[in-house]
Formats: sequence, C-alpha cells, structure tokens
Amino acid sequence: MTITPNWLDQRAFLTPDKEAIVLADGQSYTFKELQHDAKLYATHLKNQGFKQGDHIALLSSNCYEFAVVIHALHYIGAVAFLLNTRLTVNELAFQIEDGEVTGLIHHENYKEVADKLEQNQHIQLVSMNQTSSEVSYDLNQEFDLDQTSHILYTSGTTGNPKGVQLTYGNHYWSATASALNLGLHKDDRWLLNLPMFHVGGLSILYRSVIYGMPVHLHEKFHVEAVHRDIMERSVTIVSVVTVMLEQLMERLGKQQYPDTFRCMLLGGGPAPQTLVKKCQTKHVPVYQSYGMTETASQFSTLDKESMMSKIGSSGKVLFPGQLKIVENGKECGPNDVGEIIVTGPSVTKGYWKRPEANKEKFQNAWLKTGDMGYLDQDGFLYVVDRRKDLIISGGENIYPAEIESILSGLDGIKEVGVVGKEDVKWGQVPVAFIVRKNTTLSKEEISDYAEANLAKYKVPKDIYFIEQLPRNASKKLQRHKLLEVIGEEEK
Amino acid sequence: MTITPNWLDQRAFLTPDKEAIVLADGQSYTFKELQHDAKLYATHLKNQGFKQGDHIALLSSNCYEFAVVIHALHYIGAVAFLLNTRLTVNELAFQIEDGEVTGLIHHENYKEVADKLEQNQHIQLVSMNQTSSEVSYDLNQEFDLDQTSHILYTSGTTGNPKGVQLTYGNHYWSATASALNLGLHKDDRWLLNLPMFHVGGLSILYRSVIYGMPVHLHEKFHVEAVHRDIMERSVTIVSVVTVMLEQLMERLGKQQYPDTFRCMLLGGGPAPQTLVKKCQTKHVPVYQSYGMTETASQFSTLDKESMMSKIGSSGKVLFPGQLKIVENGKECGPNDVGEIIVTGPSVTKGYWKRPEANKEKFQNAWLKTGDMGYLDQDGFLYVVDRRKDLIISGGENIYPAEIESILSGLDGIKEVGVVGKEDVKWGQVPVAFIVRKNTTLSKEEISDYAEANLAKYKVPKDIYFIEQLPRNASKKLQRHKLLEVIGEEEK
Repeated sequence: MTITPNWLDQRAFLTPDKEAIVLADGQSYTFKELQHDAKLYATHLKNQGFKQGDHIALLSSNCYEFAVVIHALHYIGAVAFLLNTRLTVNELAFQIEDGEVTGLIHHENYKEVADKLEQNQHIQLVSMNQTSSEVSYDLNQEFDLDQTSHILYTSGTTGNPKGVQLTYGNHYWSATASALNLGLHKDDRWLLNLPMFHVGGLSILYRSVIYGMPVHLHEKFHVEAVHRDIMERSVTIVSVVTVMLEQLMERLGKQQYPDTFRCMLLGGGPAPQTLVKKCQTKHVPVYQSYGMTETASQFSTLDKESMMSKIGSSGKVLFPGQLKIVENGKECGPNDVGEIIVTGPSVTKGYWKRPEANKEKFQNAWLKTGDMGYLDQDGFLYVVDRRKDLIISGGENIYPAEIESILSGLDGIKEVGVVGKEDVKWGQVPVAFIVRKNTTLSKEEISDYAEANLAKYKVPKDIYFIEQLPRNASKKLQRHKLLEVIGEEEK
Repeated sequence: MTITPNWLDQRAFLTPDKEAIVLADGQSYTFKELQHDAKLYATHLKNQGFKQGDHIALLSSNCYEFAVVIHALHYIGAVAFLLNTRLTVNELAFQIEDGEVTGLIHHENYKEVADKLEQNQHIQLVSMNQTSSEVSYDLNQEFDLDQTSHILYTSGTTGNPKGVQLTYGNHYWSATASALNLGLHKDDRWLLNLPMFHVGGLSILYRSVIYGMPVHLHEKFHVEAVHRDIMERSVTIVSVVTVMLEQLMERLGKQQYPDTFRCMLLGGGPAPQTLVKKCQTKHVPVYQSYGMTETASQFSTLDKESMMSKIGSSGKVLFPGQLKIVENGKECGPNDVGEIIVTGPSVTKGYWKRPEANKEKFQNAWLKTGDMGYLDQDGFLYVVDRRKDLIISGGENIYPAEIESILSGLDGIKEVGVVGKEDVKWGQVPVAFIVRKNTTLSKEEISDYAEANLAKYKVPKDIYFIEQLPRNASKKLQRHKLLEVIGEEEK
C-alpha cells in the first residue's frame, strides 16, 4: 500500500500562489484558489449525501469547474466517471447503468440531457454551478495509490464500451514517467485543449498538480487561441492530434514559435510524413507519442531529435513501462508486425465488471492493446494500425494508416480515411474516403498517384469524396463510420 | 506489487550511448558500457555461487567499479550492504554478523581488512577486480519495488548501529521526488563526491540511471576537481555538505560559476548564516536540504528563491512525502520545537531485525526521526538539532547548532562544535570546540562575542581550541567525539 498526501493539498501547501489554471480569456486561478474551490464543492457533494466509494459521473466540456469537480471527487474519495459530451442519451444511460453510477454532476449546458437521464436512471443530479459556502467536513488528506480514482469508458468502435479502471497510482506513474521523458522546467506551461473527459486531457490536469505547473485550459481546440498562447503567453508544451497540428502549421505560416515553446506532444495516431516534414522546416519540436486510456495516456514517445530519422515512429517506451510485439503467442523479431502488448505501473488493473474481457485482454500483468505495430532494430515503435482496422485482402495484411499516410502526400488532398470493404474475390479490398482542398482533383488523379506509390493490392479499389471525416471527441478517425457512408451511397 | 523493468536495462535501451559515469580524470562510460560491465560482474557473482536474496557486503571507496557492483547485485537480486570504509574491523564484523552477510566484495585497497574479516566470519571474499568474460545467466529483467535492495547501517552516535532496509521503491520515489523539486533538464550532470556507501552518494547513482543523466564520479571531495568540473565540464548540480561548500566558496574567490551550474544541493545539517550570505553574494544557487538514510536521502528542500528570506531553513517537504512536528504525542503549532516525524513512499519500512527499535521509532507508517525542529507559519522546516544532541541546562533547551551558527560568524573562526558537558549546578552547560583560522584569536574575544549575541544560558562555559573537528565519512560533525576530547584534556 502506497500512501501520498492529497495532491492538491500538497501542491497548495508547496506553491500556494503559483498559477494552476489559466483560461483562454486570461483569467487565472492559483493552486490555493483551486484547492479552496475544490474543498467547497466537496462539501457541497457531502451535503448532497455523497460519500467515499460512490460512483459519480460528470457531464461537462472543458472549463475551470471541471477541474474543481475532479479534485472535489478526490476529496470525498468518490470514483469519477467522465462522460463524453458527444454521446447520445442512450449511450450515456448505458455507462450510468453499467457503472452503477448514483450521482450525475452536470454543467448547465447539459441540463436537458441530464434531465432525460434522470427520468430513466436512479441517479441524483447535481449542478456544477452551485457549491457550499464553507468547508464543513473532514476531507481526504491522503491518497491510497491502489484505489480507483476513475472509470473511463473506451470509445469502443465495436461492441459495448468498457469501463477502464484507473487508480491514483496509474496517474502518478504516468505523470512522473512523462516528466522523465520530456524533462521538467520551472517555467513550463502546458496547453490543454483535448477533452478532459478523455485521458489525454485529464492527464494534463494531474501533471499540473504533481509538477506545480500552470495549465492553459481551453474549452476546445481553437487554432487562433492556441497560436496566441504559444506566441504571447509563454506556453511551453501543447498536446495535439494530427488535425490540430495541420491547422496550427497553416496558421504559423512563415512565422516561428518563440524559443520558450519546447514540445508539441502529438498523439492519437501516426502523423503523415508530409506534416512531420513541414514541422521540421518550421523548427517545431514534435514529439510523436503513443498511449491509450488503459495506459493512463502517454506510454511511448519519440524525441524531437529522432523526429526525422525515425519518421512515423512513436518512439520508445517511457521509463517505468514495458512494451512488446507478439504474434501467435510469440515475441516478434525486429521489424515484424504483431500485436502491441504493454505492462507497467501506469497500466489499468482491468475493465470494470468485465471478467471475460479481462481474461481475454490480460496475460499475467500484460495488456493486449489490440493495436498492431513493430519495433525496429533500435527498439523504436511503429504503430501500423488497430487490429480491428486491419484489412486482409487475398491473404495480404493491409494497414489503412499506411495508405492514408501516402495519399495525404498528394497536393489537393486535405484528409484521407481508408477502410476495408467486403469483396467476393479478395475477401476485403481497401477503399478510400477523401476530403479535398481543391475540388478539381479527380478520382483518376488519385488512383494514378496511389498506383505510383503503393503495391497493387494496397491501391484503393474505390474512392469516395466526402465533406469531412467522422472523428470522435478526441479527433480520432472513426473508421467504422466510414463504412456507414458506403452503405448510404449504395442504397 | 509494483513491477518496473530493471532500471539499468531500461536506461541502456532508451539512451545507450549517453554518458553514464564520468571520472575525475575525464574517462567516461556510457549506459551501454555500464550495463555490459554490470552484467559481466553479475555473472561472476553467480559463478561464485551467489543467488537471489543473498546478503552481500561491499567494501570500497567511490570508483566506477562501485557503480558496476551495485547494478550487478540488482541483476542477481542480492541485498547490498554498503560498508563504511572508515570503520574498524570490529565495527565491520558487527554489521556482517548482524546482517547475516555471506559474501564480501572488496576493492584491492581493502584486502587486508577483508582478510581479517574472513578469519572470524563465515563470509566468502570476492574481489572487485575480477569479472566474467561473458554473460552466461538469465539476469533479473524486472524489479519488484517492494523488494529490499539495500541494508545500510546508520552511523549511530550511540548504541549499536541499526540496518536501515531500503527497497527499490524507496529509491525510485526518492529520485522522482527530487526531480519534481529540482526540475529535470536534458543537459543535467550531477557531481557525486559524497561516499557512495552512504545514501547521499548512493541516491545520485539512482538518479543517473532513472533520469538518464551523467554522474561525475569523484573518489572523494577535492576542492580543485569540483571547481574544475563546474567551471569547465558543465556540471549542473553538486551535492555537498557545509565544510565542502566553505572550501568551494574560498576557491571561487571573485570568480562566478557559469550559468550552466544550477544547483548546489546542501545536506548534512544547517549551514551557518555567514556561509549562506557569502553564497548569495557570489550568486551561487544553494538548495539547503534535509534527509537521512531512513528517507533514502533528500526529503525536504529549500528553493534557491527562499535562500535568503528563509535562511537556516531546510525548506518544504518533497511532493510525495509528509512531515510533522510532534511533542508529547501532539502535533506542534507553528514555530514550536518538537521531534520531526516523517512518512511517505521513500521512507524505510523498518530496521533489519530490530523489532524493539521499530516499535519505538514507528507509529503507524510514521517514523520518529530523532531530530528536533519546527515549522514556521509558512510550513518551512527548521531543523534545530538531533534530539540526542540537545543540551538541557537549568530546564532550558539549548540547541548546539544555534550556538555553532552564531560563533561561525566571528572572523578568525574556521569551524565550531558545541556540546553539553555535565554540570553540578545546571545539569548540563554548553562548551565550544573551536578551529581557528587565525591563531591570535583569544578565548576571551570569543566569549565576548558570544555574550553579545546569545542569551546568557547559551554562552559556552568553556572554550577549547582544537586542530580539527571529528567528522564521519559524510563529513557530519560527530559531537559525541568532542566529549572524548574533553576527557583527554582533563585527564
């Protein structure tokens, strides 16, 4: 059993007057203020009858109060369920029921949804906009790192979502592992615009309190606001996914970021080569990373020094973790593609109430990620695709991300999504969905380009032009939704 | 149970070609080389019949091979007993017997001592200067953080020394806590000249492998070599105790350290005000710290920003730890002196085979340190003295360190040690031992100065001039040995 002081208490004791959270409009809160607000809200929750061990959901987009609620839940020892605001009422109801959630804290913007959920679920609604006027309870002064702090449902492209259990320890190990990798500077400021209900955004909140570092908290990605915070507000680190980085590079134009900016932490899948090269030209320090809810975020990272020599790689595993490539129960040699398996102190202990999934996905303490990849001769990870996105065509394995990366290099193409379509002869064939910059680009030109750059079996058999690619709240491409587009077109 | 990869394996995988150890003569070893040498030596130990769980002692002063042996012992899962090279054969024999040690690795310089120990103890001698020519065993690829990695005997000024059990986890938490406090820069280089058989030196070795940071390893403190490594070899951090810092400041003279130098980490007791002021004038960034074997080294630290405003303080506790002041079982208010008690993931789980000491020194997971101190209104720690050094004179508590700090401010005084002497009237009275810079300084002048600056009961009743103060291998003042000097003088 490993015990630490309550992180926000300790941070407010160590650096009370340091900025904890800076909003896009410039308003800021110190760690002492954040602590005060979190304790008031924790008191409010106790006044509503909530207690240690309760399962409490939160429905809100990014805002200061989101951070307050997260810390308040730790003060009372509740398990936090962070709900994706994009989900339907039915999808949310599933998580509430599956998670045995008894309380729902909601932002006023989601009152309607909350009311609908209350009609059919045994939950008590709590507004984010009310709080206590004084701290009137003993609140948790210590954390047991083995305790579950969150259950986060994975976006799950097939089947019912599963609740990933994360402990205080998972978050602590993740935060310190990231610091060992990226370093830790006194003037660091981390910009958070990923959804805080996903682990990529949430983890930045823990880094803030553990490192004593201000977080620039944006409600969502807004290219102008991010650009301004880097150029004018001394932000040193920004977490992004590919589509955000594309827009930032366009906005940057011929300018350069100031020297204070030291890390563009890129997650959510491999970046197209052309984008990485563009960043290199503009001297933008990109750190490609790999991680997931189950690893409490960042699990491997490519240093900016290797950004060009190992293009397309997600780097090496962070210090306390381990990562292997396995196929048919055997560890793969260098450059052989297999399933990525991971273990370490930041990896989840398992899925909530899913004994079968736990049996299937865990072997000893190793988690089968469902992602495909390989390690090169130097041990650098290349993620080639989600196993379930793998296209098998005439016995050949085809990784959609590879085709997407190639096609992204063609002028006039803005975004590409590739998916497997059933085929009588080959089993499956790849088809491509293209968002054009330039609407004069023809399907024929794209096919010609693909044929010039890809093995024949990888050339998309069909090309569809669409307005935009379906993405989840983390901006990850949802390939299964591409298939629905085909369905509609062919009806 | 928390599992990590073997730290040296992981580091040699992540940054194989980075310097791990740089010797004073400029010779350096990469992490890959250190790994190779450690694996060869681990094989050598296995060839000698040693195995997981064995208690193996090491008798050596600082050198590259010391680091090799430490990592080799982890590869075979042995518990390391690091012997103080200054101890007598009888003192060493006590630790070997008490610790159930079965093997003794020794440097050639200590062969004679090792041979004497072998005559009376059931131990197998192993030279540090031989090794295997190939790696021929499966070596530990993982560490269980709950496992004991070391048993280190506390210098114990009274009674038999006690073996402090430290786990892999204690070291990991200490290293990451220090990084959260001092920050972590890509170009960091830490100079190690404290004895590696004490936790202050040993802990730097773990920071090296966990951070991926070169250690400048010196056999012992040599003012010229430290000065050179800071001025010319880009060392960024140096761990020192007061006497070393005094000499370094003298050597620095009117020069300034380069901007690359960012931290003088000062341990081993409070620094005299005059010294701290001297450092301030020379823009030397001093971080006063507090820690002990039982906390796996650094446990609280005063940032350089507070160096002058909180002079004499050891700062605030590191992030994952907790520290309180207690007297008569009750927590003290601000500025009230009491015993310092500590808890946290870097604190020892207890003393080896000392159930009574464990019962006496631990309450729940809190360790009574035996040190006296107070927290000011802002929570900054002031260590006033070891409880056993406390002088009680006519019912008044007198802290030797306070008198020492004041007397150090007198020109012509190089060093001062104060201790209590039995007195028929007062119970005890303070007496001072003075090392003079300037031999014309008289006892009368010193008394006058003391009377002008100290309450009457704190003024030393006797003053003794001596050549040098007795210090242990960590350069800590050994006050109990001062009493022996009185004994000799009065005979």
